[in-house]
Amino acid sequence: MSAIGRLDGQTMNAPIDAYTQLERRFRRLALVGQAAAVLHWDRATVMPPGGAAARSEQSAELALLRHEMIGDPALAELLDTAETAAADLDLWQAANLREMRRRWRRETAVPADLVAASVKANQASEMHWRQARPANDFAGQRPYLERVLALVREAAQARAEALGLAPYDALLDGYEAGLTGAAAEPILAELAAFLPPFLDRVLARQAELGPALPLTGSFPRAAQKRLGEQLMRTLGFDFEHGRLDESHHPFSGGVPDDVRITTRYEDDDFSSALLAVLHETGHALYAMHLPPAWRYQPVGEAMGMLVHESQSLIVEMRACRSDAFLAYLAPLLRDAFGVDSPAWAPENLARNFRRVSRDLIRVDASEVTYPLHVILRYRLEQAMLAGELAVGDLPGTWDDGMQALLGVRPPDLRRGCMQDIHWFSGAFGYFPTYTLGAVAAAQLFEAASRDADLESAVAEGDFRPLTRWLGEQVHGRGRLHENYDALLLEATGQPLHAAPFLAHLERRYGG
Amino acid sequence: MSAIGRLDGQTMNAPIDAYTQLERRFRRLALVGQAAAVLHWDRATVMPPGGAAARSEQSAELALLRHEMIGDPALAELLDTAETAAADLDLWQAANLREMRRRWRRETAVPADLVAASVKANQASEMHWRQARPANDFAGQRPYLERVLALVREAAQARAEALGLAPYDALLDGYEAGLTGAAAEPILAELAAFLPPFLDRVLARQAELGPALPLTGSFPRAAQKRLGEQLMRTLGFDFEHGRLDESHHPFSGGVPDDVRITTRYEDDDFSSALLAVLHETGHALYAMHLPPAWRYQPVGEAMGMLVHESQSLIVEMRACRSDAFLAYLAPLLRDAFGVDSPAWAPENLARNFRRVSRDLIRVDASEVTYPLHVILRYRLEQAMLAGELAVGDLPGTWDDGMQALLGVRPPDLRRGCMQDIHWFSGAFGYFPTYTLGAVAAAQLFEAASRDADLESAVAEGDFRPLTRWLGEQVHGRGRLHENYDALLLEATGQPLHAAPFLAHLERRYGG
Repeated sequence: MSAIGRLDGQTMNAPIDAYTQLERRFRRLALVGQAAAVLHWDRATVMPPGGAAARSEQSAELALLRHEMIGDPALAELLDTAETAAADLDLWQAANLREMRRRWRRETAVPADLVAASVKANQASEMHWRQARPANDFAGQRPYLERVLALVREAAQARAEALGLAPYDALLDGYEAGLTGAAAEPILAELAAFLPPFLDRVLARQAELGPALPLTGSFPRAAQKRLGEQLMRTLGFDFEHGRLDESHHPFSGGVPDDVRITTRYEDDDFSSALLAVLHETGHALYAMHLPPAWRYQPVGEAMGMLVHESQSLIVEMRACRSDAFLAYLAPLLRDAFGVDSPAWAPENLARNFRRVSRDLIRVDASEVTYPLHVILRYRLEQAMLAGELAVGDLPGTWDDGMQALLGVRPPDLRRGCMQDIHWFSGAFGYFPTYTLGAVAAAQLFEAASRDADLESAVAEGDFRPLTRWLGEQVHGRGRLHENYDALLLEATGQPLHAAPFLAHLERRYGG
Repeated sequence: MSAIGRLDGQTMNAPIDAYTQLERRFRRLALVGQAAAVLHWDRATVMPPGGAAARSEQSAELALLRHEMIGDPALAELLDTAETAAADLDLWQAANLREMRRRWRRETAVPADLVAASVKANQASEMHWRQARPANDFAGQRPYLERVLALVREAAQARAEALGLAPYDALLDGYEAGLTGAAAEPILAELAAFLPPFLDRVLARQAELGPALPLTGSFPRAAQKRLGEQLMRTLGFDFEHGRLDESHHPFSGGVPDDVRITTRYEDDDFSSALLAVLHETGHALYAMHLPPAWRYQPVGEAMGMLVHESQSLIVEMRACRSDAFLAYLAPLLRDAFGVDSPAWAPENLARNFRRVSRDLIRVDASEVTYPLHVILRYRLEQAMLAGELAVGDLPGTWDDGMQALLGVRPPDLRRGCMQDIHWFSGAFGYFPTYTLGAVAAAQLFEAASRDADLESAVAEGDFRPLTRWLGEQVHGRGRLHENYDALLLEATGQPLHAAPFLAHLERRYGG
């Protein structure tokens, strides 16, 4: 009999009481996490540079508090007690308890001082990177990245031991629970084999067709923002519960009841901001449609980044780069920017929005080349984690990898290994979720298309059939499924596999 | 010998170790407080309405965490131990320990559930008030205010018992440590006696001079904002460490390294936004110039709202409504708004910026009538706290009070008892600090003027002599002084008294 049972003298109900107490404790944890999410949004959007050091301390303190709250020995005892009667819990409660234990395992595997040191090192490195990237200053950034990597390796090792995983798997598991290198490897290998010759073929076909008409013009930021907000509404984004802002790197943040997405504007190109808005809206809809009855509980949160990315890519890549959507979009662009020439016809929009090239920059890459960017990073981060690639050797190894995979060599560091925020802010093991998310997106979209005529609806700007299906199969489920594969199995009839993605690429780009 | 001393086996140093451990704990408390300050700024400036409920939960959780951190029995033991050797601490450390104890006393006097209930009730009431005020809907607001008042009374009673103070003094002490009704009463009584006949005299003189030329025009928000930022820079505001934004009610928030002030714009009147910017910049300079060596410690924070208000009023009322500043401002207004007529001459600006009337709205009131607004609220909140005035009777009693003190009767509730956010968000005992702050501002400005020729400098837009004096006497001292009276005594040679304020009013408005 546990101390918990004795406290209220109802030994028969002790496990259920323990579960109820766990809900209370995890609710508090979630609220501190939400506060941290607001601080994160603020830092990326509005914080003046001189606030960085204090913000870093504030965020580290909130991380430390959460670490202490979850590491409280009384919580471990409550978990033990609650698990003795997990059979008495309903489906959602049982999944909630499973997610609590999962979180507890990950979090208690790492000591508090390492958590705090990591938060600070990551923020310091990220702040430095913001200046170092445009300056191509890898030498100045290097000690920051070395510090970050050292702490990442230390935490990965600690988690690997506690979770019985390889260190890289312990990192992957932090971005998508249950994801392993063994699961990722065959899918990424299939893409690594398929894509380089496919890319040659796509580029040859594109060359035959000749260049698309360029979408030139002047695109005032206010007009870009208005159009973005209009399309967000069309997609179902609720501005009573969210915002659109600007940041250095687009992201979806905030909390489920107050979802904050960002984009960045260029005066001579509307498409980069617009596509980022569509992408982040896909993430936002997931957050907005999480099960309200489970707000502030682990089971009420979204799955990991693989599933999250599938939701953004379904919106951005599958729905919004389709012929159906571009026909709907064309008149909106004419109204928003006062443009009217053959370049703005849906067919030419499609040729612009689906242009494939041997690009240097991941975030500007097409569906065809994006996985190659990810595969490079996946290989390099594994090597760095294993101690086989020193930070100092990263730039050259990166450039060689680009040459081998994409057939191009970066002319400078900001278009080479310094382009992404991830490693510089401590996010190792994150990149694979992008491409596995694209694979999941294709699989989910294929299944959704079996159940409803998505294309006709999208052609009229009606996203309800799509978002209803996603709401039922993904958004409203929270973390009810044990992992991404269980979710895909129920939603599509199969676990994660590359075929729908390859078929989609072949159909859209193969000619 | 305490448990603390035994822990590291150095019994001789136990009190000093205890002090060092207290610094660590209060640093963590300060960081959680800073996180809460960012959430507060966000709620007032950018949060979408649908985020309110979640924000309320987040803020309540942070308040609860701070309450638990300061209420930890180990912290009480550390205080006891450290105090046994307070004589070994230096001046700043000793003041820091005194402030720690003070905070501990206030915070532990109130149980955690009351803290959490208050935060939630205050936020719910404030959110409701935002709609109820423009709708003149006191009936709908009444249950919210009753709930808020009930919790304020409960907390005041608990603190009164713990601190050995009267309940209203326990509230005042929360806004300015050591302030009591006994100290406030004679000063407010002196003003209540002086001002009504003085107001008659000022208005008669104003009538003799005839109306000022109106400052009419169209004032684009972007131009208003640019001018505001320009003047903030002139005053010494550092935009590397701060921002200017918009909110419903102007305020100064954020944290010392990232000070966020707000204003609100009207298209046909530039002066309300501008004067709010000048006022809030006075607060901001205090926050920005707090002693960096004591960041995150209680002694490194600002004094209470009385001293804080003196800093904003020195800038807004004393410096920026002076003839010297208005002569400097006149050409800036011409440049900012493209205006150029006799109305924009410094003399006519002065007649506009120093106009006195029997106004209904506190925040628009002149220096002459503002104290009468405060005296009304001071009397009413004392009566509500004592249970002598029911919330339901507030509107009528308010209107009678306005009639008696200012000779006007509000035509509706939004210009009557619903105009201010304070009570509706739980801030009882706050109002007196505005007028006592004005009294302190006059006293400090008089002393500063003895040491430097402030007027000649201000006439050239040079605020350095003023801010240097304030930095030495007020900003850089943090909470080194035991209370506001000790600060005034050292800075001016006398405790707080009304004479310099009355002399200033006589000089500027008496004719």
